[in-house]
Formats: sequence, structure tokens, C-alpha cells
Amino acid sequence: MSSASVFTLHAQLDADTLAVGELGLCSVRLMNDATYPWLILVPRVSDASELIDLSDAQQGLLMRELSQCSRVVQQQFQPDKLNVAALGNMVPQLHVHLIARFIGDAAWPAPVWGKAPAQPYSEAAAEALLGDLRRALALA
Amino acid sequence: MSSASVFTLHAQLDADTLAVGELGLCSVRLMNDATYPWLILVPRVSDASELIDLSDAQQGLLMRELSQCSRVVQQQFQPDKLNVAALGNMVPQLHVHLIARFIGDAAWPAPVWGKAPAQPYSEAAAEALLGDLRRALALA
Repeated sequence: MSSASVFTLHAQLDADTLAVGELGLCSVRLMNDATYPWLILVPRVSDASELIDLSDAQQGLLMRELSQCSRVVQQQFQPDKLNVAALGNMVPQLHVHLIARFIGDAAWPAPVWGKAPAQPYSEAAAEALLGDLRRALALA
Repeated sequence: MSSASVFTLHAQLDADTLAVGELGLCSVRLMNDATYPWLILVPRVSDASELIDLSDAQQGLLMRELSQCSRVVQQQFQPDKLNVAALGNMVPQLHVHLIARFIGDAAWPAPVWGKAPAQPYSEAAAEALLGDLRRALALA
């Protein structure tokens, strides 16, 4: 892993998500699925696949950015539970899911993956939500 | 959340797992399911349910202990992928799953939850594996 290599978002993540903005380490993306409020944090580190592919400093920064996003998600959506996961079985580029879960949602109490087909946001709904998230994350 | 309150492992986690040992923040447990090498880290913080219920210092410590365990799991099992997740939809006490995944395992490439019934370790297999893990984590 060379820090000089250029980071490029994986094509599948690019296709499945909308850009919220850039934090110090991570690109913050909104999963284009209105079923759940669902952010994805992608550390801009080339060739990272596992959390332990990050340096100690990057791991610490990821945790802080994850906390910042978690607080925003809690405030905006008031979920019953947050689900946080770095899986990567399908898309090897390191990415962390942050999903607002509600008792009685489409997959509750199971994890969300493979449960309900994605419901893309309308253009207007996406624009409004991305605006809210950017303001809350001070990315506007 | 009072730091004076006594931490008690949730009964469901206790029932589903075997004790590996105690790191500085977390109790390390082995899921009693031979289907996948599967550790669970439980921060000994009373009433914590979300990662953001931990202090910044505790979050940093959790990340370091998770990295330590991840390296051990990689060395011991040489998985194709690590899955790391804090879900808590069923058991509200904060706990982090660390699962060694292999291409072609019982759930691959889906997440493990709800896919295959737990296969408890034999007493001899559990004893051997717990010994290996304790030595690798310098908990022996």
C-alpha cells in the first residue's frame, strides 16, 4: 500500500451510493436506498481492505469520523439502534456501514443485507436529505 | 452511565460464547460455533449499547484491542476476509463481532447471521482453540 497511489472509489460503491462529502479521512456516502437511513464511510486509503490495513492513526481517525456521523444519524433520525459494520465480502475496498435501525423496519431484528430490495430515493428526497446531512456534518 | 456501576455480561452473550480472557477494556469471548472462527469483544462498560456510548478514550482502546484480536485471527486462521460488526439488535449490550470468513464458508458471501445453525465445539476442540487464542493474545 503506497500512500502515493491514487485513491479511487470502487465502482460498485459509486453505483450504489450518493456523495455526501469528504471528512479528513473518509468519503461519506449515502446508500441510495430509502428503506433505511444508511451511510457508508470509505477511508481514502488505496488498497485497504481490512480495518487493520489502516495505520494506528488512521484507525483512530476513522473511529472519530464514525462517531461524528453516528451522532448526526442519531440526531437526524432518532433510530432505535445503530448498526456499524465493516464486511467487504462483496466489495473488497474497505468501507464501513452505518445504518439507522428501527424496531419494525424491513429487516428488523435481522441485519439489513439481503433482506429488502433497495428503494432508490426520488431526486427531490435525495437532494433534501443530502443537504440535511451536509449541514449536520458541517460539509455544506 | 455510572462508572461505579458493576459490569455484568449479558446472559445471552454468556450462553452463546466461551471466555477467552480479559484485555484492558474488553472481555474477549469465542462464539461457541465451529462454523466460523468468531470472536466477540465486549467492552466492560455498564449500560453501553452503541459505540458512541463509549468515551473517546474507550473508543480508541476498543479499536486497538480489535486490531490486536484481528491480527491474531488472521495469523491463526488465515481467512479470506474479516467481518467486523457492532449490531446489537437482539442483545443490546455493546459487543463487537470479529468473524473469520472464507470463500465458500456456510454463508459466503452473505453475512453470517441467520444462515447456519450454531455447531458447538467439542470440549477438546474448545479447550485447544481457547489455549491457542490465549497464548496468541498473551492471556495465557
